[in-house]
Amino acid sequence: MKIESKPTTGVIPCPVILLSVEGGLKPNIITLSWVANVCSKPPSVAVGIRPERYSYDLVKEAGNFVLNIPAEEQFEAAKLCGTKSGRDIDKFAECGFHAVPSSKISSPLIEECPINLECEVREVISPGVHDLFIAEVVAFHMDESVTENGRFDPQKMKAFTYLPLAGQYWSLGERM
Amino acid sequence: MKIESKPTTGVIPCPVILLSVEGGLKPNIITLSWVANVCSKPPSVAVGIRPERYSYDLVKEAGNFVLNIPAEEQFEAAKLCGTKSGRDIDKFAECGFHAVPSSKISSPLIEECPINLECEVREVISPGVHDLFIAEVVAFHMDESVTENGRFDPQKMKAFTYLPLAGQYWSLGERM
Repeated sequence: MKIESKPTTGVIPCPVILLSVEGGLKPNIITLSWVANVCSKPPSVAVGIRPERYSYDLVKEAGNFVLNIPAEEQFEAAKLCGTKSGRDIDKFAECGFHAVPSSKISSPLIEECPINLECEVREVISPGVHDLFIAEVVAFHMDESVTENGRFDPQKMKAFTYLPLAGQYWSLGERM
Repeated sequence: MKIESKPTTGVIPCPVILLSVEGGLKPNIITLSWVANVCSKPPSVAVGIRPERYSYDLVKEAGNFVLNIPAEEQFEAAKLCGTKSGRDIDKFAECGFHAVPSSKISSPLIEECPINLECEVREVISPGVHDLFIAEVVAFHMDESVTENGRFDPQKMKAFTYLPLAGQYWSLGERM
């Protein structure tokens, strides 16, 4: 039997993304789940960020960011970067992360995350309390350790997901 | 060591969504992964669809759709609805799915999918070969079978995910 309840953001499963962005004094990191691939050509992503968040102004000013995809080894860091503010702490230092220069944009990669997408903002729209940044992927990086013959091999990366309806993080299981 | 390669839609993991939409003679279903929650208030989603797809015009005309989230029991149907066109077949009939009237919009729910989001299109933008539909979630339904005390319980639904970098579908594992 179907139960109807209050309208909600019920798309599952969601990615867990560490967005890194250059800042005035130091780069910052924010963990986000309102993120998706949205267009194949040019490869484009959509990223929802609330204007109150410290990273919001940084992304607006930089006009670019990196989407870093964490493995389970970065799970605690992902939680920290989603709950603490870059106004108060240096998240790279706090997480023991290394900022590596990107090849095409001014925001740095997080070295420890196995997959990194350099993105340039193309458009910003305002559906409500989150603004939505539409950005083009201009460079793509993977750790050799998560590849097989140059292609991504999910067996080699412990990826994980967020389920907003339950407020839970889950590991991936096996290939179907 | 990081390997740089061609820019690509590398956000993982992605949801697998069966979008249902009313049609002239019959409703249709299309499987999509370029889908995300993007705003909490009003609850909003973004959905990328190529204009060539049969469902594209249906969504444009209806101005609404349902995002149906499948469990593993609907895996074969999800693959079918992502590869066959509604121009050629009746996907509800082909999948053995039942179309149930929505409470707020004209497009029907897929009864067999445990989670259903009724959505009204608010804005369409064109980042490239996919158009991006920004839509508000106006009603939300869950099967009682996937809930515990009225809340979604991931232990009771075998959700799955798509990994575009590998072209693979994966089950979820366990709570972290």
